Amino acid sequence: MRHILLIGIGAGDPEQLTLQAVKALARADVFFLVDKGQRKQDLAGLRQLILERHAEQPYRQVEVRDPERDRGAAPAAYAGAVDDWRRRRADLYETAMREELAPDGCGAFLVWGDPTLYDSTLAALEEVRERGGVEFDCEVIPGISSVSALAAGHRTGLNQVGRPVQITTGRRLSEGWPEGVDDVVVMLDAHQAFAAYTGTGLWIYWGAYIGTPDEILLSGPLDDALAARIAEVRARARAEKGWIMDTYLLRRDRRDRREDGAPPADRVL
Amino acid sequence: MRHILLIGIGAGDPEQLTLQAVKALARADVFFLVDKGQRKQDLAGLRQLILERHAEQPYRQVEVRDPERDRGAAPAAYAGAVDDWRRRRADLYETAMREELAPDGCGAFLVWGDPTLYDSTLAALEEVRERGGVEFDCEVIPGISSVSALAAGHRTGLNQVGRPVQITTGRRLSEGWPEGVDDVVVMLDAHQAFAAYTGTGLWIYWGAYIGTPDEILLSGPLDDALAARIAEVRARARAEKGWIMDTYLLRRDRRDRREDGAPPADRVL
Ligand SMILES: C[S@@+](CC[C@H](N)C(=O)[O-])C[C@H]1O[C@@H](n2cnc3c(N)ncnc32)[C@H](O)[C@@H]1O
Ligand SMILES: C[S@@+](CC[C@H](N)C(=O)[O-])C[C@H]1O[C@@H](n2cnc3c(N)ncnc32)[C@H](O)[C@@H]1O
Repeated sequence: MRHILLIGIGAGDPEQLTLQAVKALARADVFFLVDKGQRKQDLAGLRQLILERHAEQPYRQVEVRDPERDRGAAPAAYAGAVDDWRRRRADLYETAMREELAPDGCGAFLVWGDPTLYDSTLAALEEVRERGGVEFDCEVIPGISSVSALAAGHRTGLNQVGRPVQITTGRRLSEGWPEGVDDVVVMLDAHQAFAAYTGTGLWIYWGAYIGTPDEILLSGPLDDALAARIAEVRARARAEKGWIMDTYLLRRDRRDRREDGAPPADRVL
Repeated sequence: MRHILLIGIGAGDPEQLTLQAVKALARADVFFLVDKGQRKQDLAGLRQLILERHAEQPYRQVEVRDPERDRGAAPAAYAGAVDDWRRRRADLYETAMREELAPDGCGAFLVWGDPTLYDSTLAALEEVRERGGVEFDCEVIPGISSVSALAAGHRTGLNQVGRPVQITTGRRLSEGWPEGVDDVVVMLDAHQAFAAYTGTGLWIYWGAYIGTPDEILLSGPLDDALAARIAEVRARARAEKGWIMDTYLLRRDRRDRREDGAPPADRVL
């Protein structure tokens, strides 16, 4: 049977590969490179560097292109457009796996960060499996996510003692502060949703290009000045490089709110 | 200045070390081994194996014992008891760092999983720094968390497309389902809080000793039978080994709820 590896390669630093990932890289005959049609050079650069260092000859690289999405579909037709897009995506993955990988071969997808966090590769493979057109089994090698890398870079925990943390998107945050949490990590935010929360007593830990030589980290109480500073640094970096990836943690510090009824047990693991 | 490394060592599999962690292990002169007084043998075993493989001679190991907590304190005295415990902990860390590490030395703490997720080492070091009794700088090396390892083991994503995921504790889950999320990862649960949610249309992805040779994974629709099965497997494993570490993901599948008003955009990254 075909064997598919989903290998988490970390969020930007080639040294964030695990030993398990290094071994997995050496097992693959074929690397399927999904081209998202954006952020090309730097991401592809990391992937190539990792292949050069860790893949074992002879291996092949096969480009798989995620299909274009019809983003102009009218709301009523939206669900249909999405289903259609998913079908086309599964077609492309299935064809690549069947035609480019021997029936007993080992293929690998290199996935940015951790393959289980805001990444579509697992879902695409699930769709291929549901169609039943090509048989394969699949193994997921966890990777260091940009969330872990962000918190490590700022030397801060993701959660407060005994408290939850939520990971969400910029779009969701712009709809309102999530209920019941004091720590929120925001990904996929093209519009700096944090700007709506200045002056509400939050801290922000922001990072862009984390783990790469271009890494930028900024943190502090989220006031107008800091929000403006981040927006400016972000815009400049983005203009210079042509793309940006940023993530941030927003924190409401429980320790400031001792008298508000929070049980002191919160402060102990 | 003293340099302190907080090295994430993964959640059970020595191959989950990153290349960055391997290099960091080779830099340390002194390893501070925090003894939590529980789960001793297996955890200490992983730590020793990692040191044997990756630490560079000559290195020293120094035990740091987290102080006992006065769990019997009356509610009124609780906050004081916690503050006192934190002070004693900071004392012990500070003394160990000052007396066992040369002023220009490099010390390391090996932290289970990812150092930024439900781990107290960062907070303890923060307390030492605030006291100002010993100067040091500190570097955090991210690790594969049990959360990533759980999802990878089950070959499932942590979040649904464009949706948030919350990481919380068993105690919090037993207080009610978190607002606004369909995916909840639960850690630190000694009481199987999932049992209160059978028959509510959830899926569970449960894992114990993830990444170790004793790994157990169970998943499926969370009905009474599966909840009982997990409780039974868990109790047996715990009795046999003397300790258990388990984590699980509870999921409400959005795809089942197409007509309930969820925007179809949720289905696309
Ligand atoms: C499609 S998601 C992929 C996440 C990835 N699977 C992970 O585990 O980090 C892309 C988002 O991840 C975040 N991201 C990924 N790499 C990053 C980096 N090096 N620095 C900052 N943010 C990053 C950004 O929020 C970006 O919008
Ligand atoms: C004090 S927290 C430490 C978490 C750790 N920093 C991490 O990133 O995974 C301990 C909890 O982590 C989870 N855990 C850690 N290692 C695990 C493993 N190998 N299998 C299952 N759960 C684990 C359990 O929920 C346990 O109660």
